[in-house]
Amino acid sequence: MNTYGHIFRLTTFGESHGAAIGGVIDGMPAGVTFDEELLRLEMSRRRPGQSRITTARRETDEVEILSGIFEGKTTGTPIGFIVRNADHHSDDYDNLRHILRPSHADFTFLEKYGIRDHRGGGRASARETLSRVVAGAFAKMALRCYGIRIQAWTRQVGDIRLTRRMTEEDLRHTEENAVRCPDSLTAERMERLILEVKREGDTIGGIVECRITGCPAGMGDPVFGKLHARLAAAMMGINAAKGFEYGLGFEAACSRGSQTNDAFVKNEKNDDPRRVRTLTNYSGGIQGGISNGEDIEFRVAFKPVATLLQEQLTTDTEGNATHTHPKGRHDPCVVPRAVPIVEAMAAITLLDALLLNRTVRINHSS
Amino acid sequence: MNTYGHIFRLTTFGESHGAAIGGVIDGMPAGVTFDEELLRLEMSRRRPGQSRITTARRETDEVEILSGIFEGKTTGTPIGFIVRNADHHSDDYDNLRHILRPSHADFTFLEKYGIRDHRGGGRASARETLSRVVAGAFAKMALRCYGIRIQAWTRQVGDIRLTRRMTEEDLRHTEENAVRCPDSLTAERMERLILEVKREGDTIGGIVECRITGCPAGMGDPVFGKLHARLAAAMMGINAAKGFEYGLGFEAACSRGSQTNDAFVKNEKNDDPRRVRTLTNYSGGIQGGISNGEDIEFRVAFKPVATLLQEQLTTDTEGNATHTHPKGRHDPCVVPRAVPIVEAMAAITLLDALLLNRTVRINHSS
Amino acid sequence: MNTYGHIFRLTTFGESHGAAIGGVIDGMPAGVTFDEELLRLEMSRRRPGQSRITTARRETDEVEILSGIFEGKTTGTPIGFIVRNADHHSDDYDNLRHILRPSHADFTFLEKYGIRDHRGGGRASARETLSRVVAGAFAKMALRCYGIRIQAWTRQVGDIRLTRRMTEEDLRHTEENAVRCPDSLTAERMERLILEVKREGDTIGGIVECRITGCPAGMGDPVFGKLHARLAAAMMGINAAKGFEYGLGFEAACSRGSQTNDAFVKNEKNDDPRRVRTLTNYSGGIQGGISNGEDIEFRVAFKPVATLLQEQLTTDTEGNATHTHPKGRHDPCVVPRAVPIVEAMAAITLLDALLLNRTVRINHSS
Amino acid sequence: MNTYGHIFRLTTFGESHGAAIGGVIDGMPAGVTFDEELLRLEMSRRRPGQSRITTARRETDEVEILSGIFEGKTTGTPIGFIVRNADHHSDDYDNLRHILRPSHADFTFLEKYGIRDHRGGGRASARETLSRVVAGAFAKMALRCYGIRIQAWTRQVGDIRLTRRMTEEDLRHTEENAVRCPDSLTAERMERLILEVKREGDTIGGIVECRITGCPAGMGDPVFGKLHARLAAAMMGINAAKGFEYGLGFEAACSRGSQTNDAFVKNEKNDDPRRVRTLTNYSGGIQGGISNGEDIEFRVAFKPVATLLQEQLTTDTEGNATHTHPKGRHDPCVVPRAVPIVEAMAAITLLDALLLNRTVRINHSS
Repeated sequence: MNTYGHIFRLTTFGESHGAAIGGVIDGMPAGVTFDEELLRLEMSRRRPGQSRITTARRETDEVEILSGIFEGKTTGTPIGFIVRNADHHSDDYDNLRHILRPSHADFTFLEKYGIRDHRGGGRASARETLSRVVAGAFAKMALRCYGIRIQAWTRQVGDIRLTRRMTEEDLRHTEENAVRCPDSLTAERMERLILEVKREGDTIGGIVECRITGCPAGMGDPVFGKLHARLAAAMMGINAAKGFEYGLGFEAACSRGSQTNDAFVKNEKNDDPRRVRTLTNYSGGIQGGISNGEDIEFRVAFKPVATLLQEQLTTDTEGNATHTHPKGRHDPCVVPRAVPIVEAMAAITLLDALLLNRTVRINHSS
Repeated sequence: MNTYGHIFRLTTFGESHGAAIGGVIDGMPAGVTFDEELLRLEMSRRRPGQSRITTARRETDEVEILSGIFEGKTTGTPIGFIVRNADHHSDDYDNLRHILRPSHADFTFLEKYGIRDHRGGGRASARETLSRVVAGAFAKMALRCYGIRIQAWTRQVGDIRLTRRMTEEDLRHTEENAVRCPDSLTAERMERLILEVKREGDTIGGIVECRITGCPAGMGDPVFGKLHARLAAAMMGINAAKGFEYGLGFEAACSRGSQTNDAFVKNEKNDDPRRVRTLTNYSGGIQGGISNGEDIEFRVAFKPVATLLQEQLTTDTEGNATHTHPKGRHDPCVVPRAVPIVEAMAAITLLDALLLNRTVRINHSS
Repeated sequence: MNTYGHIFRLTTFGESHGAAIGGVIDGMPAGVTFDEELLRLEMSRRRPGQSRITTARRETDEVEILSGIFEGKTTGTPIGFIVRNADHHSDDYDNLRHILRPSHADFTFLEKYGIRDHRGGGRASARETLSRVVAGAFAKMALRCYGIRIQAWTRQVGDIRLTRRMTEEDLRHTEENAVRCPDSLTAERMERLILEVKREGDTIGGIVECRITGCPAGMGDPVFGKLHARLAAAMMGINAAKGFEYGLGFEAACSRGSQTNDAFVKNEKNDDPRRVRTLTNYSGGIQGGISNGEDIEFRVAFKPVATLLQEQLTTDTEGNATHTHPKGRHDPCVVPRAVPIVEAMAAITLLDALLLNRTVRINHSS
Repeated sequence: MNTYGHIFRLTTFGESHGAAIGGVIDGMPAGVTFDEELLRLEMSRRRPGQSRITTARRETDEVEILSGIFEGKTTGTPIGFIVRNADHHSDDYDNLRHILRPSHADFTFLEKYGIRDHRGGGRASARETLSRVVAGAFAKMALRCYGIRIQAWTRQVGDIRLTRRMTEEDLRHTEENAVRCPDSLTAERMERLILEVKREGDTIGGIVECRITGCPAGMGDPVFGKLHARLAAAMMGINAAKGFEYGLGFEAACSRGSQTNDAFVKNEKNDDPRRVRTLTNYSGGIQGGISNGEDIEFRVAFKPVATLLQEQLTTDTEGNATHTHPKGRHDPCVVPRAVPIVEAMAAITLLDALLLNRTVRINHSS
């Protein structure tokens, strides 16, 4: 099950320390201009070694596109791509061959398959998300033809969090700091916390928020394929994700219907084709599993990275007590680098829903 | 997209006020004893009108099994089933034909399909979940052959919440009160709150928690089909769900790796085949997307029901201002009745993962 | 795997002698006028007991539509339907519980599932095709909105075959005789042969041909989802089908490229939007797996029914020699009744391809 | 839709004259020894330029495996692979940019996608089948763990055909001649015919036959996923295939049930676990869509290659009359090189069915 999506589908392959990772993007609509710059930008946003708060591991992450593009346009045929694995420090992992690292996938892979590539996390490595960023970049190329934009940012690191709603203006500043928090003062505090945690050889969790603007009403299916259910699956498929919520989210538990229902009102704006809007957006842009044309808003909680630069007690594969050898280079906080991955998975999910939505009426236009 | 699952698959159909709702369960393993009593019990747990805190709407919810069972055992062929819609008060909805009820799916269905059955929420009605409870009951029949048990309970209603971890002993008392909260004192406070909210014609949200015990290691896939991603999609597909988290969940954002990693230890119990266990279970029983043999634990947040017994301002389908006519019979809080639905979707998801897991090794046993 | 299709999907359930058979049609486009008369007609075409050359078994085959239609139109939600099993002669089958009938599915079901409903063929009964005819009727309702027509006929029974190409005028006479052969003289000879075979308690095979007119270019996918590969799977899924060919078919083996390539020519007809046509149609309307706008033409070979009114030697489930007890009522030749089923599966496949084809370009119309 | 299979899944990408072709094999069971020699052998069997009866085009076809194998064994994670496109004669195709070659996919690709890579057939090139041979080799590595062997051979070229049943002994000689016909005298006549056709700049069709031995009973699903329906889809997805039949095939049309039913008999062989066998095998090893443990036998008809070394009349993309420029290097008959591709697709289909079959019983072994 290394394929995601129904119409726009991504299939990925590759281990952290194998020859290459890569994938196949199937169902990319024909006739989209290939924007190499956008692809390069998204790749660089995900890349490690960007700042002092991320891992020092260097990955050149050069994507080679192998098919599906002809004379600068997508052809509707599958887009194969690979990224060579260059910066191998496989020796860093030799002592891990028989160790079950706490809260990693070592034990569960072994239990499932009876065999595993132990080097650098193998298939469980977050390096796999690189393929999702490639597919996400292609999805964005298609989505912007419809005016759909996706932007994510760091909302919380440890107990430091944004306390007000981010405006479109705020979001323009997201990429100006290493933590990808639109508010520069909060960003500074987050960065200080991450550096402190890093000095202690520890790691810390956080929350990414994402907003999708320009999404027309009608995306998503009413029962099992609810748009937020698809987004949830997409987000929970990202390494280290522990929770997903949209609109009111977990606060809904404490809410009353009289305070959180979104009333419809006539849309009076002339330059906007929508007949009605909602006064509020507690629904997070999705009602009954289908987008209602308002901003789609959701949040994803990430746990602290399991790899510490501290010794940890655990066992080997035989159950004998041992401890981890703190080595290697790892992020003290995944959240800043998770931001482009959240966007990528959202873009893939949205484009898939948009294409599926073309099939639901007998007379369909656009 | 009215099908859920890969191997064990549920396809549902039916509108709230049509002739019937029902579904097809495909991929049910052959040779399972059909437990009619269990099916009846699960249906009665979901049924409205059970107590003063649920809707007074009566549904007999008589399930008719049409195929797939022969001489008391499942045959491996699809199980078709229907439940007739009996208690029609379609007239209650006649005035709703042109009204866009706030935070319902009226608007989005219309935008998506250009047509909708407006009676009783049509396909968006929570009555559809009845089909999931039927499939969940069959999944439970299969899962218990493997010693896998699934139990959900009400963890929070409004701001009243359980503050300690529920033991297995606690959980035995879940079904003893109308709110399905294992702690009787908390249950009483929840019930009082729900009745108060009901008197005001309002509704309130809450949180359901679920625990799966006896699940072997190895369920779930490493990348897109992570077990928690599948559970997230399953849970977010339930009406009114707004958030999902497992293990540490959103608290992970404030956590440090040094405090929340789950160390492995040798299993010393003689009557337990597992070689290793984890000392703690911050992972919620899932590591790298694959079950590790510990209890699987997750929570689902539900919003307050959108239908109020209060007048609400909104528009009609043309955008003209109007207001809702508070009529009909609705739950002031969906959480107690969501408990068996959460269990059902968890059972369906687990059985699917268990069957899929049989295919991953060249030499497979059990 | 009781679901067929990607976007327009049919899931079926039901055993021959269970309570009912039926299914769920998912992905039916919204806004199609429900044509009850068409559904009734298609059902009556498939029904046994229509003439002296078919089985005397009577099935009322009353379809009950349970959902997905509102005020005479499809709503885009799933269409559930059932057909009660009325004419049970289960006693006819009691002596078959332990017998492995030659060339039936008795043995293979038992080997696969370890259990089987032996009455009337159970799930392997051709009665299941009834559900496909229902879905096919809905597909036809949608396809005719696009001017796509599907017509099948009996081309061969035993060694009696049509020797010239059927014209549109010929095909108007297909339903005028019991064998569904458009040429009345050939039809008479076929009917005589079937009656002769029937008198001997024997059965005979034949070939159904099918033509799809009005299908636009572009249906089907280039690699695994070739339109003819989908049609092949659809047709080979019909009971008793043994072969499939399209266009030149098996004759292609003896052909030379210089004689069977289809040259393109400019289309000079003013009332036809197609720029080019092919001079010949050896391709059967499909090139590179994609429809080219010419008539799609294919043929399906059916074996003689395995149930004879003659005693046959075989074994019981333990391997002990025994013989079949010729009882029950069966068709001496399935071909005439296979005609509407071939059309139904073709319609389902075409509509699915048509809806999928809406997703392949970034700017899509119609 | 560039993915084939349910559990064992192949996704392919790549155009004939792009950077590379390749694919991802997902669902390969863990723990299988990687047999590089077998992979190399299968690749060489498909390779052009093997003899004077195939195209002179040289392809080195060096497969690079990028993931999914660790220390000589499969790990259960996806196997990514690429084959660089080396021998580009893109100039051969420049004059074809605006020409619609007869019976090629030029026109239909353009109609479907609005854009196409015209070089060397692009995505429609038979070079894509290389990826299937890679996946087929992996499938064979897994299948032989179960004693399942797949062998195909050339049964007919033009009007020269095998007239007797090939024995296991015959089949040992299949690879001894360039046409892959097990009977050396027939092979010689076929080769002469192909050379004669080639001299005339023409092409010719033929038939490939395939036999699967050692397949246990129980593979395949009863309704839509019939084993022969899956094989039909697999085979019809191979370039130039025009027809598929299994067991009796099209001859069934002329057959009577009394002559072609397969009676069961007790199996008296001590070294064979099967309780019963069939006396004859008109069923081709499949009954009711499920394998019965006898040899599976089917045939695939291929048309003559559409590319001729003769001038052909046709139009350009605007509908203007023009003619093809006979250039390039092509096979006069695809059948010999189709043999390993038929085997590959059969192997992929069988392994998928075998893995799926593990999920159908509650208590499953092996």
